[in-house]
Amino acid sequence: MIDLLLLGNGGMQPLPNRWLSSLLVRVDGSLVLFDCGEGTQIPMKQFKWGFRRLAAICLTHHHADHVAGLPGILHSVANAGRTEPLRIFGPPDTGRIVAGLRVIAPDLPYAVEVVELGEDEQFDLPSGLRGRVRFGEHTLPSLAYRVDLPRARRFDARRATELGIPQDLWGPLQHDGQVEWAGRLATGEDVLGPERRGVSFALVTDTRPVPSLVPLIDGVDLLVCEATYSNDDKLEKAHRWGHMSYRESAELARDGHVRQLWLTHFGSGNPDPEADLPNATNVFPDTIAGYSGLTTSLRFGD
Amino acid sequence: MIDLLLLGNGGMQPLPNRWLSSLLVRVDGSLVLFDCGEGTQIPMKQFKWGFRRLAAICLTHHHADHVAGLPGILHSVANAGRTEPLRIFGPPDTGRIVAGLRVIAPDLPYAVEVVELGEDEQFDLPSGLRGRVRFGEHTLPSLAYRVDLPRARRFDARRATELGIPQDLWGPLQHDGQVEWAGRLATGEDVLGPERRGVSFALVTDTRPVPSLVPLIDGVDLLVCEATYSNDDKLEKAHRWGHMSYRESAELARDGHVRQLWLTHFGSGNPDPEADLPNATNVFPDTIAGYSGLTTSLRFGD
Repeated sequence: MIDLLLLGNGGMQPLPNRWLSSLLVRVDGSLVLFDCGEGTQIPMKQFKWGFRRLAAICLTHHHADHVAGLPGILHSVANAGRTEPLRIFGPPDTGRIVAGLRVIAPDLPYAVEVVELGEDEQFDLPSGLRGRVRFGEHTLPSLAYRVDLPRARRFDARRATELGIPQDLWGPLQHDGQVEWAGRLATGEDVLGPERRGVSFALVTDTRPVPSLVPLIDGVDLLVCEATYSNDDKLEKAHRWGHMSYRESAELARDGHVRQLWLTHFGSGNPDPEADLPNATNVFPDTIAGYSGLTTSLRFGD
Repeated sequence: MIDLLLLGNGGMQPLPNRWLSSLLVRVDGSLVLFDCGEGTQIPMKQFKWGFRRLAAICLTHHHADHVAGLPGILHSVANAGRTEPLRIFGPPDTGRIVAGLRVIAPDLPYAVEVVELGEDEQFDLPSGLRGRVRFGEHTLPSLAYRVDLPRARRFDARRATELGIPQDLWGPLQHDGQVEWAGRLATGEDVLGPERRGVSFALVTDTRPVPSLVPLIDGVDLLVCEATYSNDDKLEKAHRWGHMSYRESAELARDGHVRQLWLTHFGSGNPDPEADLPNATNVFPDTIAGYSGLTTSLRFGD
């Protein structure tokens, strides 16, 4: 299961009563934060998912509204008592950005490890999450993230008994993929059921809806996607600044066959993100206008 | 006249419903900001004193809760259309700190000039304000600021007439300090009234109440002073971390013969800053527990 919490839904600048867009993810005791603009630690305190277990921060890009809150987050994680390393993923140059911002967070009780990601790179996140990124099209290099939590194949105890595998080897077999006993060999393929669908989400923000993102997000349970402009009358701006309209975001969700869409990163000129929601739901019905505190859990089915 | 606005009253970390301690000052069309922790631009937007005229930022020290909001402020000033230079004052090493944080605010339509201040240094602020600093005692080098707005001496028109100074030279005389006409000389001393009291304030935060601060704040109209701990039962912490209790702050105000005291920089363990206010008012009656939006104007008397 993956729990997701939208901490804020704003783009460009933090406003009174609107935190900047940021997504907090919890899985099996670990937290992963996607983007951290100025003020992000405040709703993170408010919703009480904690700081100590924050094991990774994934940055989409280096604009201030997505990264300026990093020093505050690092301090709050320190104050919460973390000593294990914290890993920061991001596009190229993330090391320099983190080093710059750490002038005001130089001494931490845990190691900060930076991993710069390239096109289509796959990488491990905490607690078995698997990440993959593609570049979008923005005014700075900007990464779209897909995250999968694979589901283990079922162990077929009946089949293992039929094959005569001693029961004390079932654990090693699942762990190591094969075991030997009495001159015989069994592999996982002998005793594991069919592949099972895992759960997945994607975060796409600060990018035009370029076609290369469609396969990245294909079939995710949840797409969290920017929708800076509610109406297509701002399309010229969307093109110029590398953003999307509600309609474009919904079309991306539709083309990617996702299950649900959360809109976020609303521009400061959009005081009521729900007002124009039909511009999205007309294209992709299962769309929610994101708000600070919006949460869901992605569960394995049966 | 100097207008002052307390943007926030919190110390250490930004909290839901409590902005970090920061003071905005307006005089004759210019703005000066004292400290800018994470989120400071949000109340600054809320109270609508604007961003474009922000001519100077004075940093007391380099802890994140006093400086992490700098990139956001710089962006908001840019978005508001400023093109004139903005000057940042602070203790030694401010240049390195500003350079670090500017990794996410590299391109601005105005110049950012850093001025590092030393013990007892006096310096010019916009619109005729005069600043002076002394170091406090904290876990990092920390500056206490005093700011004076001198009042011009009155021009004595009757005396100027008696001296036969042509009226079209009165302006140049006030501007240049002396004029010559028909082989005669007049100086400002000939036509200016007695010295007149100006207005002044001081900001003292993140320091122990060391005696060297008393002459710095002497007689100011308003002292904005940290009071991290409401009760003296936290005095051991106050000593260890370089802060003050309500009582200590009030004693500093009393010893400095200031006219009014605003307490600020309340610790996160102090949910209701007014509750323990008697700990201060018992020592210095004219004390206010600062809150976001607290404002006053320091006016020249008659």
